[in-house]
Amino acid sequence: MANDDKAARREAGRFAYEGLERAIHEKARLGILASLMTRREGILFTELKELCSLTDGNLNRHLKVLQDARLVEVWKGNQKGKPQTLCRLTPQGRERFLEYVAVLEQVVSDAAAAAKSPSKQAARDLLRGWSPA
Amino acid sequence: MANDDKAARREAGRFAYEGLERAIHEKARLGILASLMTRREGILFTELKELCSLTDGNLNRHLKVLQDARLVEVWKGNQKGKPQTLCRLTPQGRERFLEYVAVLEQVVSDAAAAAKSPSKQAARDLLRGWSPA
Repeated sequence: MANDDKAARREAGRFAYEGLERAIHEKARLGILASLMTRREGILFTELKELCSLTDGNLNRHLKVLQDARLVEVWKGNQKGKPQTLCRLTPQGRERFLEYVAVLEQVVSDAAAAAKSPSKQAARDLLRGWSPA
Repeated sequence: MANDDKAARREAGRFAYEGLERAIHEKARLGILASLMTRREGILFTELKELCSLTDGNLNRHLKVLQDARLVEVWKGNQKGKPQTLCRLTPQGRERFLEYVAVLEQVVSDAAAAAKSPSKQAARDLLRGWSPA
């Protein structure tokens, strides 16, 4: 039991995944950042909306969060005589996104390791004496 | 322009990451599921709390969501004379978690590909005529 306690302390927080920054982790924002990663020069609002299957309102809302978190820059300008909005990652945004992705890689490798390891004991033996909550 | 439009349609939704199921994607729940993946026989509530750095209240709240989504089972029982709660993945939960992780792998590989590809044009040239929003 003492050994179990020590092992438990060593493992505390092992699956807390603290590096999964909330501003980045939200599904729509993850898609926006992944899109912007593919083009350093930025992506026009209209195209970004399509790439991420978002409405104008939703894209605007998420861009606001990403700007406040200093992950993304938004620029206004004209292209072929039409007013356009250009979105791109900040240098910091690029760096923080890559740090975030490193944690995702950890999740993926944890899952891959777990999927490979065989069950030590049949689950029905372990559940002898337990009842559904 | 017509070619651009065709390419845009082909790419529509490319970064929507529809497979990132909300019940799984939330950071704390991701940690809970990743922990449970490592042990088919289940994990006691008290240990799971430590592994994920969660309070009793938070763990209970997230377990409720995971039970409602049929990803996790919760069992009540006794171990060494003490009442305990055992949490484990359902077979469906295991399968859906692995599907989710396959989408994470896509995010990771998209980011890795983007990080490697060189910028085609210096950003300052592209931003000529643009102003911060």
